[in-house]
Amino acid sequence: MKRSSAFRTISGGVCAPQGFFASGVAAGIKKNSRKDIALVVSRFPCFAAGSFTTNMVKGAPVLFDLQQIRTQPVWGIVVNSDNANACTGRLGLRNAYAMSKIASREVSAHGFLCNKNSFLVCSTGRIGIQLPMAKIAHGIHQAAAQLSRNSRTAAEAIMTTDTFAKQIAVEMQIGGKKVRLSGMAKGAGMIQPVTSPSGKPSPLHATMLSFLTTDAVISRNLLQACLNRAISQSFNRISVDGDMSTNDTVLLLANGCAAHSPLRWNSNDLRCFQSSLDYVTFSLAQMIVQDGEGTSKIVTLEVTGAATATEAELAVRAIGNSKLVKCSWYGENPNWGRLCDAIGYSGARLNPSTLFIAYNGIRLVHKGLQITKNLPIVRRLMKKPAFSIECGLGLGKYRAILYTTDLTEKYVKLNKDE
Amino acid sequence: MKRSSAFRTISGGVCAPQGFFASGVAAGIKKNSRKDIALVVSRFPCFAAGSFTTNMVKGAPVLFDLQQIRTQPVWGIVVNSDNANACTGRLGLRNAYAMSKIASREVSAHGFLCNKNSFLVCSTGRIGIQLPMAKIAHGIHQAAAQLSRNSRTAAEAIMTTDTFAKQIAVEMQIGGKKVRLSGMAKGAGMIQPVTSPSGKPSPLHATMLSFLTTDAVISRNLLQACLNRAISQSFNRISVDGDMSTNDTVLLLANGCAAHSPLRWNSNDLRCFQSSLDYVTFSLAQMIVQDGEGTSKIVTLEVTGAATATEAELAVRAIGNSKLVKCSWYGENPNWGRLCDAIGYSGARLNPSTLFIAYNGIRLVHKGLQITKNLPIVRRLMKKPAFSIECGLGLGKYRAILYTTDLTEKYVKLNKDE
Repeated sequence: MKRSSAFRTISGGVCAPQGFFASGVAAGIKKNSRKDIALVVSRFPCFAAGSFTTNMVKGAPVLFDLQQIRTQPVWGIVVNSDNANACTGRLGLRNAYAMSKIASREVSAHGFLCNKNSFLVCSTGRIGIQLPMAKIAHGIHQAAAQLSRNSRTAAEAIMTTDTFAKQIAVEMQIGGKKVRLSGMAKGAGMIQPVTSPSGKPSPLHATMLSFLTTDAVISRNLLQACLNRAISQSFNRISVDGDMSTNDTVLLLANGCAAHSPLRWNSNDLRCFQSSLDYVTFSLAQMIVQDGEGTSKIVTLEVTGAATATEAELAVRAIGNSKLVKCSWYGENPNWGRLCDAIGYSGARLNPSTLFIAYNGIRLVHKGLQITKNLPIVRRLMKKPAFSIECGLGLGKYRAILYTTDLTEKYVKLNKDE
Repeated sequence: MKRSSAFRTISGGVCAPQGFFASGVAAGIKKNSRKDIALVVSRFPCFAAGSFTTNMVKGAPVLFDLQQIRTQPVWGIVVNSDNANACTGRLGLRNAYAMSKIASREVSAHGFLCNKNSFLVCSTGRIGIQLPMAKIAHGIHQAAAQLSRNSRTAAEAIMTTDTFAKQIAVEMQIGGKKVRLSGMAKGAGMIQPVTSPSGKPSPLHATMLSFLTTDAVISRNLLQACLNRAISQSFNRISVDGDMSTNDTVLLLANGCAAHSPLRWNSNDLRCFQSSLDYVTFSLAQMIVQDGEGTSKIVTLEVTGAATATEAELAVRAIGNSKLVKCSWYGENPNWGRLCDAIGYSGARLNPSTLFIAYNGIRLVHKGLQITKNLPIVRRLMKKPAFSIECGLGLGKYRAILYTTDLTEKYVKLNKDE
């Protein structure tokens, strides 16, 4: 994605916009004293937009947030890592509710004038185990005391098998005012998010968590519309292993501190805000793919020329999630037959005589047959840590893109014992 | 599957029924002088039934057989391994046709009075490369000279990454006559066959090849009906890696040598034949799962209590093909949350409050919650090389079963370089 001139990147994360504070502490949920509780808090009430896993099995925090987000305003987000609080029944739901309540109370004690239960809740980690609530309560207490304008510790506390903290911030001008938009994310494994505002199952399929903040002045509906569009081109277009989590969540809080005149539908200012949001979510999604569990290659996979949009989607996900295809990428092996095979069972129509497959723009397959003279070039470019593949079906005008990875022995090793 | 008393297993493979001959030779397609051309020939003309990959991308031999099988009788099957002759365009089709022609000619030269082009053709191996036809012609020439009543070399010649040759034979009594039914198969990787007589894409999704022979007297239509039923409970219920091949093929030849009065619809004799065929196909399917590439565990996975048959099918395949689920089996780790997660994104309805999950009949999850006291027992039984898992959805009466495997570092290593 090209950066528009409408905004510039700045350092920092979720605290870059005015009025936001964050912290991350080690509450003893994770072993080895690693941080495991994060708070993101606004000094002022926020409109919140959200998008939630379309998995039929939803973690308790997702079920709580789907309810809670109807009650605006929101003051912040409380997150724990190492335990997903999913498949935990009524007690799990009560614990999610308690986390919101404790966060509101603890943060109030430090001078934030927030409502009761005005926190959204997220959890990530192992499924099926109840939260250690004593540790969590103590952790939130500590985190509230350590709130600061530095977002680093919060970005660290939401990590599970991530190898680096993921955050980004941008600044734009709206109505002569400086407006900031920023975010953090975690990914690594169980990554093929397909989220929607209602969490209703979608025809398609880590825990992927992303928290976005802005000081822009924007209505709740407009905020949600902007988030939906941004997600459709970023988080919902990545896959590490094809397993959609029970807890995937994206939240966007807007506290209006920039004090410009409110953003309006179809305005240039809104377009500027949208392009900033697109950039922030796209950048975070790319960081998640880069940090996929045990991966060694990043592949930008595009299916073009499909007969319908659904078929483009089916084909790109079948290729991107095929174990055999992903193993051949790991082996730097241009075994394009496996790509054809995957398209063939995806449900998409395909005619070998109109098919081409290009690696970084170089055609290895034309009209369904191998161009053998290009094999050495393709072999060479597959040695790079990142490359692109286009499968042109030549049947229509529809396309779909997926940012994905290879499948390595390290992935198996990591997920064998977890 | 329980063995019926209607038949007994005997030693041997495709040559166990009267009038069948086979051979396997090394034609130099594979490296290291391993066998790579197989012939199965009947002294007398056969009715042939077949079932072919539902992948939209079909290997040239599959396209050839779909045509050829309309022309009955058939005299035999010619197979090469190490090259799938798939994604090879018109030349690939011409080569498949040539293989049939060469086989008919070479076999005629050894006293089999077969028609021209009366051989069905199968290929398995790498996709996208043209067959080395000189080697193949020479191999068929050699194989025809070595035809014998021993099926062992043929069963070896169809292997690719298989670690053992797969064959089985049974004997039954029909109308006072001894009738034999037998088969061989190859599997290993790219294994989630879903075949149908027409090869038309099915709503669901290795190369799996299986060749069955019998000396029973049976009409073409009845033979196909019996094969369809047997496949629906055997080959179409296995998955190693979830990748359906371009070349999956099952062929069943009946030469009528047993000379009993023809099998009739709804007769006891037909039921006896069907149960023998069910047993032979089920046994071969189990051997394929046991020999899955790099696998260390065999898992009999069943989804019960689904609201519809489609949902049972979606759920069982989502679980059985999830990389995270398969890695946890490899790690002997009862991470049942990953099973719930996979059902949740499968498209099947699920209500945590009616869900149970049992390992070898021992419930680890009841009404969606973990029964922690059973955790040590389940951990122990997962150390076995084979175990069963039942996911009871509690929503209806539909069920689906899948015989599947774990995902190991060895699988990744094997498929990285191939």
